[in-house]
Amino acid sequence: MKGRMMQVPLLTSDILKSAVQRYPRQEIVSRTNEDKIHRYTYSDAYRRSCQLANVLARLGVQRGDRVATLAWNNYRHLELYYGISGYGAVVHTLNARLFAEQLQYIINHAEDQYIFVDAPFVPMLEEVRDHIPTVKGFIINGDPEQMPETSLAPLYCYETLLAAEPDDFAWPRLEATDASGLCYTSGTTGNPKGVLYDHHSSVLHAMMSGSSQYLDFSERSCVMPVVPMYHVCAWGVPFSAPLYGAKLVLPGPNMDGASLQALIEEESVDKAYAVPTVWLGLHNYLESTGKKIDSLKLVGVGGAASPRALVKLYAERYNVYWMGIWGMTETSPLATAAIPTPDMDALDAEARYDLQATAGRAMFGVEVEIFDANDEPAPHDGESRGNLRVRGPWVLQSYYKGEGEHSFADGWFDTGDVAVINAEGYLKIVDRSKDVIKSGGEWISSVDLESAALNYEAVNEACVIGARHLKWDERPIMLVTLKEGKAYDETELRRVLVERVAKWWMPDAIIVVDELPHTGTGKLRKVELRQEYADYLLESSD
Amino acid sequence: MKGRMMQVPLLTSDILKSAVQRYPRQEIVSRTNEDKIHRYTYSDAYRRSCQLANVLARLGVQRGDRVATLAWNNYRHLELYYGISGYGAVVHTLNARLFAEQLQYIINHAEDQYIFVDAPFVPMLEEVRDHIPTVKGFIINGDPEQMPETSLAPLYCYETLLAAEPDDFAWPRLEATDASGLCYTSGTTGNPKGVLYDHHSSVLHAMMSGSSQYLDFSERSCVMPVVPMYHVCAWGVPFSAPLYGAKLVLPGPNMDGASLQALIEEESVDKAYAVPTVWLGLHNYLESTGKKIDSLKLVGVGGAASPRALVKLYAERYNVYWMGIWGMTETSPLATAAIPTPDMDALDAEARYDLQATAGRAMFGVEVEIFDANDEPAPHDGESRGNLRVRGPWVLQSYYKGEGEHSFADGWFDTGDVAVINAEGYLKIVDRSKDVIKSGGEWISSVDLESAALNYEAVNEACVIGARHLKWDERPIMLVTLKEGKAYDETELRRVLVERVAKWWMPDAIIVVDELPHTGTGKLRKVELRQEYADYLLESSD
Repeated sequence: MKGRMMQVPLLTSDILKSAVQRYPRQEIVSRTNEDKIHRYTYSDAYRRSCQLANVLARLGVQRGDRVATLAWNNYRHLELYYGISGYGAVVHTLNARLFAEQLQYIINHAEDQYIFVDAPFVPMLEEVRDHIPTVKGFIINGDPEQMPETSLAPLYCYETLLAAEPDDFAWPRLEATDASGLCYTSGTTGNPKGVLYDHHSSVLHAMMSGSSQYLDFSERSCVMPVVPMYHVCAWGVPFSAPLYGAKLVLPGPNMDGASLQALIEEESVDKAYAVPTVWLGLHNYLESTGKKIDSLKLVGVGGAASPRALVKLYAERYNVYWMGIWGMTETSPLATAAIPTPDMDALDAEARYDLQATAGRAMFGVEVEIFDANDEPAPHDGESRGNLRVRGPWVLQSYYKGEGEHSFADGWFDTGDVAVINAEGYLKIVDRSKDVIKSGGEWISSVDLESAALNYEAVNEACVIGARHLKWDERPIMLVTLKEGKAYDETELRRVLVERVAKWWMPDAIIVVDELPHTGTGKLRKVELRQEYADYLLESSD
Repeated sequence: MKGRMMQVPLLTSDILKSAVQRYPRQEIVSRTNEDKIHRYTYSDAYRRSCQLANVLARLGVQRGDRVATLAWNNYRHLELYYGISGYGAVVHTLNARLFAEQLQYIINHAEDQYIFVDAPFVPMLEEVRDHIPTVKGFIINGDPEQMPETSLAPLYCYETLLAAEPDDFAWPRLEATDASGLCYTSGTTGNPKGVLYDHHSSVLHAMMSGSSQYLDFSERSCVMPVVPMYHVCAWGVPFSAPLYGAKLVLPGPNMDGASLQALIEEESVDKAYAVPTVWLGLHNYLESTGKKIDSLKLVGVGGAASPRALVKLYAERYNVYWMGIWGMTETSPLATAAIPTPDMDALDAEARYDLQATAGRAMFGVEVEIFDANDEPAPHDGESRGNLRVRGPWVLQSYYKGEGEHSFADGWFDTGDVAVINAEGYLKIVDRSKDVIKSGGEWISSVDLESAALNYEAVNEACVIGARHLKWDERPIMLVTLKEGKAYDETELRRVLVERVAKWWMPDAIIVVDELPHTGTGKLRKVELRQEYADYLLESSD
């Protein structure tokens, strides 16, 4: 028996329509690429998104066309999120950290029709211009006086195009399953793969991730996504903040401590989101200047494991709650979070920091499960490791154009992460499946070892990989880069490590290197390192 | 172009599954029909809902079967919400205030297979037993020792059935559009009509209505739905509270001031929901006893217009925020709410009370619009009246079995209410379409007049209807019942009225009556009164 309720799809355009009705005067504050503060309201954003949709019609963009952006976190990028997806096209966020060859591959794979680009990224596109034949034109996100000298053609000016259009638009009643966004993952191996979001997944994700189960937004919030809008959609904050009426602070290109501190204080930001290194940078700046971040109450931290030392530091020095989160491009991206709970209030501080440094619990709508080598669910005991799989309406069903079939198992997306889940449902990523080290049949977590090494202050970055070993099959070795001006002593580093991990996990070698190789999005290129150091222990034992 | 995200329907069973993972020890506290306090956790509720689903299988209940409940707000009724809908059947909440003939009509129309009944309602069913042939059995919601003497047969005991079943159950992966619940509206005319909810509508409604846009639930909330679970699903709180982890206090049969005050204080309730008369009753009790409700921070009030005097009283005497809301059985039911906002904080108290007494603003997912006589949207100026229509994924598409087609216009559900909307989107119901009085071509609001009359303390209830008039076509007349022991003087009442409404709205006659006729759910039967008093002014002017 079927219910008799309206089948009315909720669309991204409905989010901004609702925001302008409920929160017309709420502010959106951007730091522009010219390092100025731009300030306007949801009403303004709505009117300009309408103008943008009219621009797309004038350019001849068709339903379902991919229209790309290459831009920092700012108000025009926000308009592009709504204008393109609301129009019925697909907003494809190009990652500004990609190498030219990846960028070219992605644009061609997506068959982008137009690219809306912030002026600083024009050189990136010039480099690939001759090899991206689907692109019909480039729109510079700026005023006429900001137009750069460039060989890109045809070339348009965003503000000139908008100024010619009316500021209302009849947003089409699309279907819930119509594609709305496209974002590529840059794996450590192989070509990038596209995740094609639809209106249903984007809106549900915004509804739940903005709720008290996760980001906890309301009209009283002032939130700053430092995590880029060109990468995992800035955690969906461009959709969840307007849905719940939060004031939105978009930090533009500068993610350094000084820029963030200034925005936090001037705009009274109370919640902000970024990877751990950003918060380390902010702390260093605050320590060297004595400046304040009194308005800040919570940082959401993902993209890498939370260093527990930073969790504690932010609590005790800044009275800021460090909320560990986990998600992926493939999960829209938010899935789990270590939100502050009444149970946590009852814990002593150290036990609370332990929980905050996890990835937290699954929000409603997302199922997470760990599977052992026999594909059976592993116990939720905080000890048993398993392959992490995830399922839900904002998790991908298949990659764009059907790639990556091996990533799916029995209706679950296989994340490639190895994780533990405790009895309370708290998830902790302990490794990548490919990065886990199997020593004498037991798993050693490279992530835990890397995280432990950061407690030694001379270590700038640590990378742990498995190297072949005659007796144990594999043993961990650790590569470290050092901070300038800090004394390094391996014995001291080993003392720090052994306090934090099991003795049999201790690396067989610790090697200081000048630099470690990274992907375009800042991930360690472990595949290369594994090849280079595969026989290190065999050779060194000669 | 279609997105490539998982098409995973969210089901009511997912709500309880998620709750037991996130909030296993959160409490559900019930006042039983025996006036005892029962206390257990979401984990307990989950296990018993599993047992209940196994009971349904044993009874031979099929997917889509309607299984009815006739019960107060208590933990077993909660289990029935989840056990029946999660199993794949349709939980049909019978209204305990119905007259026998309506009850019989509804059970037959729904073709209910089983009825789960609280012992106090057994006599209601005995009265209709011989006329409800689809019903295969009756389950008494209680222990073996609580089984009543009754002619109902076949008869089962809830706890005996549950005790025989395992406490796990493989909840089926139903479709989002599968029916999950059925609730009849008792209109003032004609037969009741059924609203058939589905999993999609129920879950989306819970996600949004539990968010900061509306009920604002979290693990830190302790919420008490006084509004009955047998009527408009207790505003969906049985779904939204577990979804967001709120402690749930279910008050059972007693909605008097003493019972509610005791629960509020003993359980530290901070949010509670009921019609205005309940809050008047609580106030009267507090005033006469001097008792406290210090934990209470907010009351949500719907089902009738909010008397502004009570809004003010609750703010100034009890420091409780009175949140006016609006919704209908047809809208799941929540649609609009006057939540506390930063803009309100900036208002002076009297202006804030005005807003709180409205129905508030539409939450995301619901569109509300007012239409003039030409079916064009009326201005949102706080003055222009129009027929209120509503649209969204938790609004009905058509009544059960296709009845009531005239209630739909161009994709909108026509509520039968007349409303105004102001520039900020605040909705105010000013009348029922059928109850509005058209005097000399202008509309007079019976609701405003009735509300104004309640400011005169001798008036117990007021009913305003249009009576035929030679010159003006219709003029308002007011029928009032009086409070015992209070002096009544019509001149004084008129003085109170004229301070609050336009002079030309003043009733042509005010008539004191002994009682006013009501429907089973407490609504005034205006149709009857209009017939009785249609020619009153013509006759009295003879």
